[in-house]
Amino acid sequence: MSLNPKCQLNASRMTANVTEYLSDVKREVDTCIFDFLPTTDAHEDVHQLYQMMLDYPRRAAKGLRPALCLLICEAFGGESKRAVNTAAALELLQNWLLIHDDIEDGSELRRGEPCLHQKHGVPMAINVGDALHCKMWEMLLRNTEILGHELAFRILSEFIQLSNQVVEGQHIELSWVGSNRWNLDEEDYLTMCIQKTAWYTCITPCRVGAIIGGASDAEVDAFVQLGEDLGVAFQIQDDVLNLIGDVGRYGKEIAGDISEGKRTLVLIHLFNACTPTEAQRVIDIMARPRDEKTEADIESVLQLMRKYDSIAYAQRRSKALLQEAAGQFTHNFAHLPDGMAKRLFLSLIDFFVEREY
Amino acid sequence: MSLNPKCQLNASRMTANVTEYLSDVKREVDTCIFDFLPTTDAHEDVHQLYQMMLDYPRRAAKGLRPALCLLICEAFGGESKRAVNTAAALELLQNWLLIHDDIEDGSELRRGEPCLHQKHGVPMAINVGDALHCKMWEMLLRNTEILGHELAFRILSEFIQLSNQVVEGQHIELSWVGSNRWNLDEEDYLTMCIQKTAWYTCITPCRVGAIIGGASDAEVDAFVQLGEDLGVAFQIQDDVLNLIGDVGRYGKEIAGDISEGKRTLVLIHLFNACTPTEAQRVIDIMARPRDEKTEADIESVLQLMRKYDSIAYAQRRSKALLQEAAGQFTHNFAHLPDGMAKRLFLSLIDFFVEREY
Repeated sequence: MSLNPKCQLNASRMTANVTEYLSDVKREVDTCIFDFLPTTDAHEDVHQLYQMMLDYPRRAAKGLRPALCLLICEAFGGESKRAVNTAAALELLQNWLLIHDDIEDGSELRRGEPCLHQKHGVPMAINVGDALHCKMWEMLLRNTEILGHELAFRILSEFIQLSNQVVEGQHIELSWVGSNRWNLDEEDYLTMCIQKTAWYTCITPCRVGAIIGGASDAEVDAFVQLGEDLGVAFQIQDDVLNLIGDVGRYGKEIAGDISEGKRTLVLIHLFNACTPTEAQRVIDIMARPRDEKTEADIESVLQLMRKYDSIAYAQRRSKALLQEAAGQFTHNFAHLPDGMAKRLFLSLIDFFVEREY
Repeated sequence: MSLNPKCQLNASRMTANVTEYLSDVKREVDTCIFDFLPTTDAHEDVHQLYQMMLDYPRRAAKGLRPALCLLICEAFGGESKRAVNTAAALELLQNWLLIHDDIEDGSELRRGEPCLHQKHGVPMAINVGDALHCKMWEMLLRNTEILGHELAFRILSEFIQLSNQVVEGQHIELSWVGSNRWNLDEEDYLTMCIQKTAWYTCITPCRVGAIIGGASDAEVDAFVQLGEDLGVAFQIQDDVLNLIGDVGRYGKEIAGDISEGKRTLVLIHLFNACTPTEAQRVIDIMARPRDEKTEADIESVLQLMRKYDSIAYAQRRSKALLQEAAGQFTHNFAHLPDGMAKRLFLSLIDFFVEREY
């Protein structure tokens, strides 16, 4: 496998337009993924599997994680094209996680289309997720040709660490559902959210970008705190969009988190702010299976969230965390040359919270 | 991580008693696995996840795959203790595959206990499978310390190849269920069975053992054909035991394959041997959801299988494949010194077909 000589991702050659940069990254990473994933097979059933494996990767996605990885690589003076394969593995990770996550949460829509298990049933969807999971490790193994054994091994170790975090975060959330637990505080939410979301959305993308860019161990480690703040800010904004977003842009059912009974910062704020009677009413609705919830039920929870300003509170928390992350980046990496990569990174993390989809 | 200095697996120091050898291997591999998997965590939910991850690995298992790996390593003059970590990864593979497989097939019992998803629900069981899947790659990454970068990466590549095979084989079988397809011939069954079972049960265990033992590429590749024959023989015997085994020893429901509507060589033989009316009756029963099948339904399928000698036919096919595999081993590896490892390997593959559990 060779590096794409036409790779145009060098941030220093670009304008500081974050949406343009994101679409360039997405194009480059997609090329890498679709060159890599198998597409045809003589065996009809295997061919069908390959088509299912391509389903989620083909759906519209923002490519935030690859962009973080490539920008940080460049900010440290690395060539971003050496990190494209790793950035593509981050997308594969996201895809297999989402397939399994959608089953586990009983979700219906993903990126504007029915979830994979809604289209093909749970058994096949589990297996397609496993197939993409294996492909992620295969893609990471190709790094030996791009980065050499030692660096490839370090990147693999980063993905191991991340995987351990993400399954733990996922289990914590599933435990709350399983035990019908609602007495959660912000600390509980943050722990879950850091493990379930921040590691794979921010911490690892930045860390692997930094490693490929040639950062020192201390510099790589600085991305844990920064990525926690940024990842939580991202997730809170995601929770907010789930409640007030536009289904056409956001791609999931609006208020789907209420249908799925999801524990969010918005909900935790509401429980702290409302009366015990209101809290009990919310729990009664949230805890019911999704097909027993009426539109009026969902609307009544939304109304309480508005009444107690819980959505606005979450937005404020998200913005504060973003500012914290941006401050850390500016402070910790002041010694890196000021260039387009650093500027784009700051615009990109703004987008994490300002986005509407 | 260091090699266990007390490792007693050297086959040359042992009697050619295959059950004794298997239990020694199991003990050694279990030590490796239970030293490796996390057991406790301060976070209650994470602690619970760790306990669930230990569930399948703690259940009684034969440890056939590790034994194949270690014996082949020794047959090539390698030190089996260098292969223990890889052998343990084969067990982790088996465990995450079984957790997901049991969900996909709607199974009830595994190794004499309720399946993981029966105990904790599908969402958690999917995630526990993913957690063990990640741990498998983590374990394989430790091979860099034991075998060095280059050999560790070769072993990783073998596991990638195997993973691609196993998800394809799994998809083929799920497609048959999904499309209610029954017009299968032996060729269809063999293709599925080689991909779904033979790779992870025989081909890869032998190949990685050979690689660590220092075999040439040609020698390593000779295990594809041999492992296909052996793996199919193993699966056919498994299908037979499912029909006529003893639940206490076998650990799954007897005739569970009929309840689950599984396509086996026994069934394909029956379709070829019986009358069209009988075939239609069998399909009507097999295709029904498991909770709509009565004991009388299952018994009537079993009776037809006995009437047409389909079980005996499968047993003959299994034995013939085993003899083929043994012949290949003796012929292809005549140049290797005759020692306990080779003898035990031949006894072990006999056990693949002679076993009653």
